[in-house]
Amino acid sequence: MAEHVYKKIEIVGSSPQGMEDAVHNALSRASTTIRNIRWFEVTETRGYVEEGKIAHWQVTLKIGFTLEE
Amino acid sequence: MAEHVYKKIEIVGSSPQGMEDAVHNALSRASTTIRNIRWFEVTETRGYVEEGKIAHWQVTLKIGFTLEE
Amino acid sequence: MAEHVYKKIEIVGSSPQGMEDAVHNALSRASTTIRNIRWFEVTETRGYVEEGKIAHWQVTLKIGFTLEE
Amino acid sequence: MAEHVYKKIEIVGSSPQGMEDAVHNALSRASTTIRNIRWFEVTETRGYVEEGKIAHWQVTLKIGFTLEE
Amino acid sequence: MAEHVYKKIEIVGSSPQGMEDAVHNALSRASTTIRNIRWFEVTETRGYVEEGKIAHWQVTLKIGFTLEE
Amino acid sequence: MAEHVYKKIEIVGSSPQGMEDAVHNALSRASTTIRNIRWFEVTETRGYVEEGKIAHWQVTLKIGFTLEE
Amino acid sequence: MAEHVYKKIEIVGSSPQGMEDAVHNALSRASTTIRNIRWFEVTETRGYVEEGKIAHWQVTLKIGFTLEE
Amino acid sequence: MAEHVYKKIEIVGSSPQGMEDAVHNALSRASTTIRNIRWFEVTETRGYVEEGKIAHWQVTLKIGFTLEE
Amino acid sequence: MAEHVYKKIEIVGSSPQGMEDAVHNALSRASTTIRNIRWFEVTETRGYVEEGKIAHWQVTLKIGFTLEE
Amino acid sequence: MAEHVYKKIEIVGSSPQGMEDAVHNALSRASTTIRNIRWFEVTETRGYVEEGKIAHWQVTLKIGFTLEE
Amino acid sequence: MAEHVYKKIEIVGSSPQGMEDAVHNALSRASTTIRNIRWFEVTETRGYVEEGKIAHWQVTLKIGFTLEE
Amino acid sequence: MAEHVYKKIEIVGSSPQGMEDAVHNALSRASTTIRNIRWFEVTETRGYVEEGKIAHWQVTLKIGFTLEE
Repeated sequence: MAEHVYKKIEIVGSSPQGMEDAVHNALSRASTTIRNIRWFEVTETRGYVEEGKIAHWQVTLKIGFTLEE
Repeated sequence: MAEHVYKKIEIVGSSPQGMEDAVHNALSRASTTIRNIRWFEVTETRGYVEEGKIAHWQVTLKIGFTLEE
Repeated sequence: MAEHVYKKIEIVGSSPQGMEDAVHNALSRASTTIRNIRWFEVTETRGYVEEGKIAHWQVTLKIGFTLEE
Repeated sequence: MAEHVYKKIEIVGSSPQGMEDAVHNALSRASTTIRNIRWFEVTETRGYVEEGKIAHWQVTLKIGFTLEE
Repeated sequence: MAEHVYKKIEIVGSSPQGMEDAVHNALSRASTTIRNIRWFEVTETRGYVEEGKIAHWQVTLKIGFTLEE
Repeated sequence: MAEHVYKKIEIVGSSPQGMEDAVHNALSRASTTIRNIRWFEVTETRGYVEEGKIAHWQVTLKIGFTLEE
Repeated sequence: MAEHVYKKIEIVGSSPQGMEDAVHNALSRASTTIRNIRWFEVTETRGYVEEGKIAHWQVTLKIGFTLEE
Repeated sequence: MAEHVYKKIEIVGSSPQGMEDAVHNALSRASTTIRNIRWFEVTETRGYVEEGKIAHWQVTLKIGFTLEE
Repeated sequence: MAEHVYKKIEIVGSSPQGMEDAVHNALSRASTTIRNIRWFEVTETRGYVEEGKIAHWQVTLKIGFTLEE
Repeated sequence: MAEHVYKKIEIVGSSPQGMEDAVHNALSRASTTIRNIRWFEVTETRGYVEEGKIAHWQVTLKIGFTLEE
Repeated sequence: MAEHVYKKIEIVGSSPQGMEDAVHNALSRASTTIRNIRWFEVTETRGYVEEGKIAHWQVTLKIGFTLEE
Repeated sequence: MAEHVYKKIEIVGSSPQGMEDAVHNALSRASTTIRNIRWFEVTETRGYVEEGKIAHWQVTLKIGFTLEE
């Protein structure tokens, strides 16, 4: 296991519900094309506002996954 | 729209409920005096503890809004 | 009060529920051995993924507490 | 002169022409309400793209100005 | 629109003309294989020098684009 | 108290005396227009030199104050 | 050559031997699918420990390669 | 001497007198329980304000000390 | 396993042999008093020089270990 | 070529024309005394303002050059 | 004046008296060989400790000076 | 010794052998013209790749040395 090679990509997820839901949406979309996602790291949390209320949260993640041999 | 100018200010919101509620409180207070808030960026998340429990969360935001012409 | 000295330590909490629950778990464990925790600062938010779903969130905190005299 | 106090604010300027023009637009708008702007610092350069072309550049500046006594 | 997921990739563009032209070259090449580029962020500006003159500028960008569902 | 909202602004103070005096000058000027300043954070320390001697120190602060409801 | 466009990706290599060997493993795996790798930048060095000994080193790299025209 | 191992801890000292005095207070308290302190690094300087005046400075230090064998 | 709490401490290891050996020395010393070390992160690499040669390398690590329940 | 040693110095160039011209002025002055300049990295972009207009741009560069053997 | 070119060098000053005195010592030594020093920026503040007391402060500065034409 | 003044310069060493050898090459070249080198700090580790293999490592160092009085 020690010799695995991983790739990390950067994804931005959005959600009107909140920060954690934006992460779920990003991972859910990413896992339709990437197998073997192993971890994520939150690198940026922001949101868009309309008429004084949060229209949607937007969270940037790095996602790490195993490169198959 | 491409020639809008925005101003960004820094606000700290607090809440005993959690991180997202602290963001809501900051935006809610800011929108009483600022029209046209467009986005926010979370720059710091912290909290205060009393008797081993979180008394309140405290989240620092940058808030961007359109400067009217 | 102005002459208090504080110590800061770094703790990583985990939770399958979410980011805020991981913070609660870290503080709850830390307060079994440290009295007088005063504040925390979130320095890193990440998580581990199994079969396309978040298995657990993992949040790194700095925790500040008063050194008794 | 050594005892001046300055305030710094953060402004985002936009322009379809380029990075330098976005700075000019930000300063031009800021100087309609702020006297005595003395310097600026570029903190972020980005842009929006439509159909493969740059629709507008967007530059974040800190602007420093003298607080009058 | 609030639930879009975006991917960000990192590209380095070069140009003997200048910083903005290097950005154009990077975007122009990227848009031959990526549809729906939405924004870019400049993360590094550098250049190579030959006989005391700038041979070419080299600008590193992050490019964000919509992942289609 | 947990639900206060704070604003943070950035100020640069100067003084020929030293670093701490530059902070005092910045706070003293800021408190002529802002009530309820609660804390400051030093973000940059620099100075200007004339004929090999420090003409004045220049310290950049973020100042946090309570927004009244 | 001045007008080349490069792409940078992020890869994590592992090795029980050491830091340099982890870099070799990452590059070796990456070059099975990417032609024209030109440079790498080490962004993070860490390792996993079992029974007080280093089980494997883990090094994060950015890898730059020429996009063919 | 080349094979010493050091530990670094993070301490926050306070003082109404000034920044240097806050460092002295932190070191003075730390040396009641730690032998062999060798160096410190200032990582954050801030302060609390009451009625427009500095109530106390607060300086965060990393302190390095030799682990005895 | 998802609910483990970890503590991270900062250690500086030295070695005349090289960077990797300095890491080994730091881990070796730390494991005499800490059980359950799980990972390390290199945060700083430096060295001391005598008569133009490296006298010893000095590597700063964060070490993460499980807090037992 | 692999065993070249380079030195990097830090230079600030100014120009009323713009950011790129400030870089040219810095390189032009540096090349009167340094042979074999190979690359530059922009580390800071700022400018000075007079009567609401940019008086001059000021760009900080790191310049790398080959040390001759 | 807008077309001046400046060079920045990095100097470390020491003093048993305090942080400001260490800056004075660094500038005083630098001005024996450099004419036209214009400004300094403090980039690091640390100190060495002997028997629980500060033996000397050590402050790292960047010093900017005009390159004569 | 407390009142020494040090200068820090930035050097890039290269080697086909590895990271540590690149540091040795940089120090070896630097010590042909600088007496009294006291320490180094690694600030960047990268490398160049040819045909899928590391052609040479390239390590950026800051080197500190005593300024003689």
